Amino acid sequence: MKLYSMPSSGNSYKVRLLLALLGRDCTTIDVEDNSPELAQAKADGRLPFGKAPVLQLDDGRLLPESNAILSWLGRGTEYVPGDAFDHAQMLGWMFWEQNQHEGVIAVRGALSFYPSRKHLATPDRMQDLLDRGHALLQIMENRLRGRDWLVGDHASLADICLYGYTCTAGSRGGFDMARFPAINRWLAGIAALPDYVGLEG
Amino acid sequence: MKLYSMPSSGNSYKVRLLLALLGRDCTTIDVEDNSPELAQAKADGRLPFGKAPVLQLDDGRLLPESNAILSWLGRGTEYVPGDAFDHAQMLGWMFWEQNQHEGVIAVRGALSFYPSRKHLATPDRMQDLLDRGHALLQIMENRLRGRDWLVGDHASLADICLYGYTCTAGSRGGFDMARFPAINRWLAGIAALPDYVGLEG
Repeated sequence: MKLYSMPSSGNSYKVRLLLALLGRDCTTIDVEDNSPELAQAKADGRLPFGKAPVLQLDDGRLLPESNAILSWLGRGTEYVPGDAFDHAQMLGWMFWEQNQHEGVIAVRGALSFYPSRKHLATPDRMQDLLDRGHALLQIMENRLRGRDWLVGDHASLADICLYGYTCTAGSRGGFDMARFPAINRWLAGIAALPDYVGLEG
Repeated sequence: MKLYSMPSSGNSYKVRLLLALLGRDCTTIDVEDNSPELAQAKADGRLPFGKAPVLQLDDGRLLPESNAILSWLGRGTEYVPGDAFDHAQMLGWMFWEQNQHEGVIAVRGALSFYPSRKHLATPDRMQDLLDRGHALLQIMENRLRGRDWLVGDHASLADICLYGYTCTAGSRGGFDMARFPAINRWLAGIAALPDYVGLEG
């Protein structure tokens, strides 16, 4: 099993985090933003949607999309709820992450973090992303008040997937995380899971 | 079972389409864009992420996110592959739809379709969305060449979910669908499924 992974990206990191939590062996092939390795992986047809992460099975089959990879790796483990409605709710948070959270929280972080994108970080755009990001984080904050995890009573793929970019929402994205004590408690809870690895780990 | 549904929205339509294909009864509560019904549903806490569709079970539990609702309604039916890898691939297309396709194909359509959004449809933005949308549609075209369905040998939730906005990519979005014969064949294949209903149906 091989993972085509962008080291700096939350979408790739969330897969590396689940692999670590599950103690699964996987060869990681780094395809950093703007690197020749990324261009080569695209040219070789390894990235069906043109982006990392992609998991390649030992028989060669390719699985793109970070949250689909989490679902594949997580099946039958403690990170996927057995209850059907909890499972559907977990997927709900994962689709919300890709449709709402990633396009604001991750994008604002990327505009600050990657030198190649700084010209896109106009003041109006950064302010709009800041306001929308705080509103999205408030949805997570409201959910996590009085709960340890987004769904059920154990960390699930919903927590892993939303951790991917929320863990750098302050440091890269410039969001005011002091407003969100329940999120901060939840971030610490994930970092305390056995075999946890950080984004740079 | 109740569905809070925005009549003009592809995200709501894909749920209504699956309900029709499965012959499932469901009360539909219309919450159109900018309507008092939508504002009321938000105020009553019926829309956990602030948007439709949301499925409410008979016991009151709420499930947001169109593709999570498809997963919940589709479990155990012919629209969910039994093979685990096909299932993961199906989810891959569904996450791609929410992360890439919807933010371009649906957004360009919405900027043309909803009078309240026309002021956001600047020429630069519309051209950028047009170019990106054609590139995304090309990914679907490449996949559908020589195949009837996105995953496996039967229509799955991946097809239903991507149909939601692809069916209006030409009429609302202004994308040049003549470039995509395999997508057009696939669109016709979905419209020919027994008990199919159209967006306005």
